[in-house]
Amino acid sequence: MGKSEKVKRLREIFYPERIAVLGVSDSPQRVGFNLFESILYGGFTGRVYPVHPRLETVLGQKVYHSLAEIPDKVDLAVIALNERATLEALQECGAKGVKGAVCVAGGYREAGDEGAVLEEELRRAAERSGVSLIGPNTLGFINNDAGLYVTFYPMQLPKGKVSFVCQSGGVGLTLMHQAADAGLGLNKWIGVGNRSTFEFADYLAFLGEDDSTAVIGLFVEGTEEAAEMVRVAGRLEKPVVVYKIGRSEEINYAALTHTGTMAGSYRVYRDIFHQFGLYPVDSLLEMVACLQGLAFAPLPAGNRIGILTHTAGPSIVAADLLLSRGCVLPALAEHTIEGVRKLTGPNPPFILKNPLDVAGMGFLAGAYGEYLALVAQDPNVDLVLTIFCQHKNWPFPTPQIIRVKEETGKPVIACYASRRSLGEEDRRLLQGHGIPLLTTPEEAAWAAAALVARAAELQRRGGQK
Amino acid sequence: MGKSEKVKRLREIFYPERIAVLGVSDSPQRVGFNLFESILYGGFTGRVYPVHPRLETVLGQKVYHSLAEIPDKVDLAVIALNERATLEALQECGAKGVKGAVCVAGGYREAGDEGAVLEEELRRAAERSGVSLIGPNTLGFINNDAGLYVTFYPMQLPKGKVSFVCQSGGVGLTLMHQAADAGLGLNKWIGVGNRSTFEFADYLAFLGEDDSTAVIGLFVEGTEEAAEMVRVAGRLEKPVVVYKIGRSEEINYAALTHTGTMAGSYRVYRDIFHQFGLYPVDSLLEMVACLQGLAFAPLPAGNRIGILTHTAGPSIVAADLLLSRGCVLPALAEHTIEGVRKLTGPNPPFILKNPLDVAGMGFLAGAYGEYLALVAQDPNVDLVLTIFCQHKNWPFPTPQIIRVKEETGKPVIACYASRRSLGEEDRRLLQGHGIPLLTTPEEAAWAAAALVARAAELQRRGGQK
Repeated sequence: MGKSEKVKRLREIFYPERIAVLGVSDSPQRVGFNLFESILYGGFTGRVYPVHPRLETVLGQKVYHSLAEIPDKVDLAVIALNERATLEALQECGAKGVKGAVCVAGGYREAGDEGAVLEEELRRAAERSGVSLIGPNTLGFINNDAGLYVTFYPMQLPKGKVSFVCQSGGVGLTLMHQAADAGLGLNKWIGVGNRSTFEFADYLAFLGEDDSTAVIGLFVEGTEEAAEMVRVAGRLEKPVVVYKIGRSEEINYAALTHTGTMAGSYRVYRDIFHQFGLYPVDSLLEMVACLQGLAFAPLPAGNRIGILTHTAGPSIVAADLLLSRGCVLPALAEHTIEGVRKLTGPNPPFILKNPLDVAGMGFLAGAYGEYLALVAQDPNVDLVLTIFCQHKNWPFPTPQIIRVKEETGKPVIACYASRRSLGEEDRRLLQGHGIPLLTTPEEAAWAAAALVARAAELQRRGGQK
Repeated sequence: MGKSEKVKRLREIFYPERIAVLGVSDSPQRVGFNLFESILYGGFTGRVYPVHPRLETVLGQKVYHSLAEIPDKVDLAVIALNERATLEALQECGAKGVKGAVCVAGGYREAGDEGAVLEEELRRAAERSGVSLIGPNTLGFINNDAGLYVTFYPMQLPKGKVSFVCQSGGVGLTLMHQAADAGLGLNKWIGVGNRSTFEFADYLAFLGEDDSTAVIGLFVEGTEEAAEMVRVAGRLEKPVVVYKIGRSEEINYAALTHTGTMAGSYRVYRDIFHQFGLYPVDSLLEMVACLQGLAFAPLPAGNRIGILTHTAGPSIVAADLLLSRGCVLPALAEHTIEGVRKLTGPNPPFILKNPLDVAGMGFLAGAYGEYLALVAQDPNVDLVLTIFCQHKNWPFPTPQIIRVKEETGKPVIACYASRRSLGEEDRRLLQGHGIPLLTTPEEAAWAAAALVARAAELQRRGGQK
């Protein structure tokens, strides 16, 4: 199957009309039950046919005793059987004309030599039957664009434009939860598993052509097809944020026994990612912060960051991180300094520099907004990072920040020193207006640095044309 | 004043019976109002006397027109006046016999040469009057052990045994909010400001002798008294986690104009911290994770980590980080492997290694607990990191984790891949039994690495005796 054929096949798998769940169960303890419940719970509007040789109903739905018995075409088979029964199920899929399947069973190459032999059999059975596989050894996939949750973790998540490709179900779950905490809507999620039919490059090419995906998060333990993966990812017209483990040499063994691939050298991978225009990060939390930046904010024209704050410390923490990541903190323009003096009088009780710490003059949202407008309008500033501390009597300057962002069109990142939960309403408002909201200065700096790097990458590509 | 005299003076400031607030205001927009409200709102049970030359009542309380007018002894003066009026207020404090004061005003050495002259005057005025200062240019302090909140950010926080010394109010607020999110109770919080009377070393010595503080978080921008600071911190019989900014050279200027001190070299500081037994971290989030580990878990006997999971990816992320921080992942003992085989049959469907990924066998809490007991009982394992993913139908194995920890007495760190908010009840239960709960694998690894480092530090000290 060629590359474009694979992308077409993935599109069919992610947007099916009729799904069969092979190996459904009536016990909430079992994976088969949860895969079926996940599809119903997630709100899929197509038809779902549970299949089991002996059960009659599950969750109030009629169970079919075999795939062949289903009086309808089936677009996607979700196979919740063990590693050997999965092989036989693929033949039945072929006979039924099913073109796509998800195989969650483990016990293949990640389990040792015998498993590797079995996986080769699986691969051949799939090819013979004309079935394309996600997995095996995967948590499944999610297409939130169609309300389709094909994992054995029933859930519902806010819809958005961030998609993930993950070489681990558990890391993928962590990313989904942390992204939801950050107000980041999910579009698609793929657990690549052992990659029997589709490789990283195929999933990335698919997301690259997927109109509802704007930003991609990629988690990699290790792969033999790294070159193709980065080549494809680097060509996409949307940013790819990548987290690759392997700081320590010993970790290769653990990765090998997870998905059957070597982890390789961390530093070499980082260099390659940079070179090909992917954006490497060092933790799941950094990935979520960067994705939030890229998903909500417009790109800056350059790397010059203006910081407004009413408390110096967080601005210094953020500046320190930004300066270590290729950003600069330009001096404020003379015009901006004059503007500040108009607000404060000729001798402001703070130093006129960047970060601009307006201290006691900036506690109230109205005044804060006036200083923010000055910093954002400064021609030396490409991106604004704006810091404010939660206070019982002094509301967050959310309307002011939104107005400044709307008026200048420049990217603005808000950093509220606050409980993560207490700013929910402000978060919704800010993000709704294209302003990421973070609650620690490092996360705000991570988001800003990712935006600056993305802008530089696009300029580099433009220069090469 | 000698060192021990300073500690005694700090104790008096932190545990006063009668407080005067000079420069109170009736406007919630003003710092003076918020300092006064903060003390009332926080639940201080002693007497509080608001002072203002013209106001009659604020928040329903009689206002005194001068400090001298208060018909009572005053232990602590909270000075919410500007930088010049603060000087005069110190003389009044001296006349009244007030021994301790908090000065929040800025405009001293952080504001330039003129401010430096004024600060020297302030220092001399304080000395002449026999008054010891926290600040100036500080957010204030909190003694949650006595329900005393002396900042202009009125709040209430859960009580606990973690204390902070912060060279920034805003970073301190961020730490307090993030710590509260993590279920970490606060004991004392100190914004050191410009350190006119007390130095870092004095605050650390005070917390070292403070029975209700068990763990200390220290945020430093820069200081000329670094040597004394690390010497004192490294001698304390409680762990000190330190975050020092200064990755970039340019940051020195920002720090200089904040609290009047140079940031110095990041790497040199890190080396010195290690050498003196402080634990350096690279972000506020890492600090909070480490403090959670140190505040709740017992110390491990060594650096050998056993990991149990039902999903490989997060265990590999955690292992990768642990291995890069001096921890080891030992092979499981023969006895442990036999125990696992007893549960699974002779050919378990997963590889018998560490991290132990029991995959599909570990979804249900009961079974998960049995594997966890085996890993925790393993004589090769000093500390257990246990990973579980949030699931609609499979409850967290919280009771099982608690039982294993109670039975083995070994430190156990729980990592639940979940929304930060959804595990609140589980968090309370786990932390109540001495088990930190983190929601990303990196945070769990940070907490584990901090415990291992602390145990090694104490062994090193023991060896030197």
